[in-house]
This record gives sequence, structure tokens and C-alpha cells, in this order.
Amino acid sequence: MNAQIKVGIVGYGNLGRGVEAAIAQNPDMHLEAVFTRRDPASIDSKARVERYADLEKYRGQIDVLILCGGSATDLPEQGPQLAAMFNTVDSYDTHARIPEYYAKMDQAARTNGKVSLISTGWDPGLFSLNRVLFEAILPNGDTYTFWGKGVSQGHSDAVRRVPGVKYGVQYTIPNEQAVDRIRSGERPQLTTRERHIRECYIVPEPGADQEAIREAIVTMPHYFADYDTKVHFISEEEMKRDHGAMPHGGIVIRAGNTGHDTAQVAEFKIKLDSNPEFTSSVLVAYARAVYRLAKEGQVGAKTVFDIPIGYLSPKSPEDLRKELL
Amino acid sequence: MNAQIKVGIVGYGNLGRGVEAAIAQNPDMHLEAVFTRRDPASIDSKARVERYADLEKYRGQIDVLILCGGSATDLPEQGPQLAAMFNTVDSYDTHARIPEYYAKMDQAARTNGKVSLISTGWDPGLFSLNRVLFEAILPNGDTYTFWGKGVSQGHSDAVRRVPGVKYGVQYTIPNEQAVDRIRSGERPQLTTRERHIRECYIVPEPGADQEAIREAIVTMPHYFADYDTKVHFISEEEMKRDHGAMPHGGIVIRAGNTGHDTAQVAEFKIKLDSNPEFTSSVLVAYARAVYRLAKEGQVGAKTVFDIPIGYLSPKSPEDLRKELL
Repeated sequence: MNAQIKVGIVGYGNLGRGVEAAIAQNPDMHLEAVFTRRDPASIDSKARVERYADLEKYRGQIDVLILCGGSATDLPEQGPQLAAMFNTVDSYDTHARIPEYYAKMDQAARTNGKVSLISTGWDPGLFSLNRVLFEAILPNGDTYTFWGKGVSQGHSDAVRRVPGVKYGVQYTIPNEQAVDRIRSGERPQLTTRERHIRECYIVPEPGADQEAIREAIVTMPHYFADYDTKVHFISEEEMKRDHGAMPHGGIVIRAGNTGHDTAQVAEFKIKLDSNPEFTSSVLVAYARAVYRLAKEGQVGAKTVFDIPIGYLSPKSPEDLRKELL
Repeated sequence: MNAQIKVGIVGYGNLGRGVEAAIAQNPDMHLEAVFTRRDPASIDSKARVERYADLEKYRGQIDVLILCGGSATDLPEQGPQLAAMFNTVDSYDTHARIPEYYAKMDQAARTNGKVSLISTGWDPGLFSLNRVLFEAILPNGDTYTFWGKGVSQGHSDAVRRVPGVKYGVQYTIPNEQAVDRIRSGERPQLTTRERHIRECYIVPEPGADQEAIREAIVTMPHYFADYDTKVHFISEEEMKRDHGAMPHGGIVIRAGNTGHDTAQVAEFKIKLDSNPEFTSSVLVAYARAVYRLAKEGQVGAKTVFDIPIGYLSPKSPEDLRKELL
């Protein structure tokens, strides 16, 4: 067996913890250290824990750094800094700003002879991969992306800002009727309302007016007004018991036509009991690919579109052809 | 717009016709000629039709040749010959002999500075791609492949050899109960019988003993004995009306566990009204990738595991990042 791939984790929230767990499932990898801006003593990792400020000391000692910070403030700042010192993988997911982030990461990595894979995970990531694959194979077609059933952080935050709400969680749910129409080969024009359903579980403040809360939620512009939204009032106990997990999932599906209007449907679907653990597992597989690209002498920013799938596997090309082709 | 990619088709059966139709859906491609071992005058293509023996004259005039022959006898012979003269794409699907075919194609292509992508389509092809992807992301898991609902040529041939059978078609059908167990995160051990159901539509010879036919089919070793098989007797008219199409499909699904036994499920599914037209569409998208690899100066045999998904798309990397990431 070759030497293990030396991995570092930057940031130790849900994603960082998931990456540690995923590395443990991959015998060709070793977690060198976790880097944090918090007090290292407060981090419950089994690995060595170091201060973020000490990252520079690890130059040359880590093959790939997995950036587990958020896209709003962490990655735009840390990404280009770290891409200048290490090969990196991240899950930058602010779709609209990806070209800008790519340009900065490409500049930093290329100048310093590093490889930086940006925006992986499942969306962006595996879903993006399937959108490109499906469109290339069925050019005459329509692609649809559905998210859920899963917790939307932004919508849960919005719900919690409604007066009288003590705790709140919002699930985004694909409209199964719409999905089934596409699965049958139809290429429907779907309104926002027809694509997803929103479901809220609310623990009200004692004495709060539940009807007023419901009304405030379902009419909230942008977040809920364009959707069919169900609001359920539950106890604090039920909230803790039933809504503490982070399930998610989704579907990318394309209905297309070949030849003389022949219907062809391709679908990619995931059902996750833990969204962060799955995203972490994707990051770790792509870290292996980044390690290989760097070994080949490639440099610059990359996305999932640029990486041969074989590079994600610990198996040799010969074994892949023999066992899985 | 760049110059069009000049494509040639070798063999004009269902697959070759599908490739012609798929090229027509891709404005960045042009079909230069169809090559056949039959009388060119007998071929109903809209393109120029040439004799197989004249292929050599097209050296340097075709960017990628799509080989549409069968895996049993055509490709083992034609593949290495043509890989020495052209960049090629094929759908070689004799799983057990892929390593041997790969070696021959690699030798022929590499020696002559060409690129040959072998064994694409949907299985081998897109299904293989997803088997590798899923296994790399969820190393602690089990992958299952289901085929159908679709016609199995081998099983239909077996049915037609039964005495008293005039016409016969056999459909392979995934066992939905098994699929649903995996979708729920279970990782069941499945017997052959639990994976697929077989369904036969038979037009009996006049006066044939239907019960004897049924018994001969369901007890046939290897082909049917290990399965639950339904046999339906129909009229010649029904056979023509209801069973002339070539639908197919299938599922690659992996149930895995991350962290502390967290269930994660990933699934890739296709539902095809025409199996050959879909396979053709995959071949054509991969022809674009081969064209690009050749432009980059790559040589030798490749498989779907070696090709970045972005290479399949006519869009630029910038547009892909902006629109589909």
C-alpha cells in the first residue's frame, strides 16, 4: 500500500466532525490535524487540534486541506489564503458568486502550484455533475432539481423570527406529483408552488396566538407566500425528540426526447439521514482526487466537472475496469 | 462557433441509426459518413454511406469514429483495427472480457497516437460511473444494480428456442420490494430470485401445448429456474402491437452508513422508451469528450472512469460553472 494521504480539517462544526468520521472510513487517508479558531482544548476531536493561526507551520506536511467553514464569511476569506499554501477542497455553495470565488481560488492556487477543488458536496457537487451529464446526453430535454425532504436553514431562521415562535424548523419537500409527471416522460412547466411544499414545526411561546403565527408564516413574501405551506404546532418535547436530526435529500431529473419524440428519463436521487455527514463524505472522496491531480502536477482551481470519477476511488484503474465497469 | 466535430458511424443497425439521430440533436457535430459491410445502396441513412473497406480513405478526415457493431464478433475484430486509424468510441459490453479488450484497444490507439473510449452506454457506462462514484463516497455500503423493465435479448432468444413457441419476448423487471428495502437504507442480502422478476409474452404455434411451453420456460436452468417467471400467451396481433418497442431502464443504488450508523442512500435511475436511442446518445456525448482528449494530445484507451464530466458538454467550463454548478 502507498503512503496514506495526509489530510487536514479547517473548522470543526458539523461538517468538520463529519469529515473526521469519513476519513476514518478510508484506510488510505490519515487525519493529521484539525485547525480551529476556537480554543483547541474545547474541541472534542480524536485528532491533534491546532490553532488556525498555526496552519502555516503545516506547509508541506499536509497533502490536502478540507475547508469546513461557511460560504457566507469563512470561505471567501480563508479560501484564497489557504489555497496559496495547500491543496484544498471546499463546499462553497453561494451559487451566484461561484465564478468570482473560482477566479480568486484559481489565482491563489495557480500562482503557488497548488490544486483547489471548490464547491463540492451534493448541491453544488453531485447534483451539478448530474445536471451536466444529463444535459449532455439528452440535449433535447428539461432538467429539474428538487430538494428535500430536509431542513432548510434559511427558512427555519425566517420562521424563528416570527413573533410568538419559540422554536421552529422548516422542511422543504418535493412535490411528488410533479416528480411523477417528469418520471413518466412529461416535460412540464412548473411554478414554484408546484415544485416544493414547505412544512413548519413550531413551538409557540406560552400564550402566543397560533393563528397569527400561522398567518405570518404562510404569507411571508419570498420565503413562503409562493408555496403551499403547512404549519404544525408541537411541544418543546416533541421538537427535541422528532426534529433534532439533519436529514436531507433531493432529486435531479431530466426528461428528454431522442429520435422521433422517444421519451427518455434519467434521475439521480439521494436520501440522507445526515446532510453534513454525507457532504463530508463527498468532500473526502474529492480530497483523494485532489491529491492525485496535485501528484500529476496539475494546478489551479477545479470543480467536479473537471475530475474523472475514477480519481475518487481508492481502487486502481485496472481494478475499476475489472470490477465495476 | 468552432468547427464542427466530424463524426463517422461504423455499422448501421439500431445503434447506428440512433447515433445518426443523436448527432442531429448536437449542432457542434457533423456526420461525415456511415460505413457498412452491407450494400451501401441498401442503407436508408440521410448521410453519405460508404463501404467498410473504404474506411481507410477517411483517415485524417474524421475526428471520431463511433463503432456501432456488436460485442460478440464485430468489436473484438474491428475495434483494434480502427483504433489504429481513428479516435473511436464504442459500447463493448462483454463485462468479463473488458480487461482484454481494453489492452488491445490501448495498444492499437497508443501506438498510433489515437484515443479510444471503450465500453460506454448505460451498462457498462453511466451505471459503471455511478457504481464507482457511490462506492467512493460511501465506502461502508452495498451497491445493487437492477435492470429493467426491459427486453433481454438473451432471454428472449432462449424462450424462442422452446418447442411450440412461434414468437416470444422476455422482460426483465426489478423486484420493487427489494428496491424499496434498499431505498429505506437497508442493506439486504438478496438472492437472484429476490432481485428480478421475469415476464414472457409468447405467441404459441397453432395447437401447441401451452402448459408444456410454460413448464419448459420456468424450469429452464440458468435462464429462468432461479427466478419467479410469469408466462403470458398472446396473439400474433398483440405481439406486434404491444411488444415491438425496445424500452429498458434500470437502477444503480447504494445504501451506506456514515458516522454512527447513519443511513445514506444514493440512487441513479433511467427509464428509456428506446434502449438503442439512449445508448446512442451516450456514445455521441462521449465522442465529444474523445475529440477534446485527442486535441489535448492524450492517447490510448479510456473508459468512462477517466473522463471529466465537463468534457461531455458542448458548453464552456465558464458557462458550466455559471449555469449548472
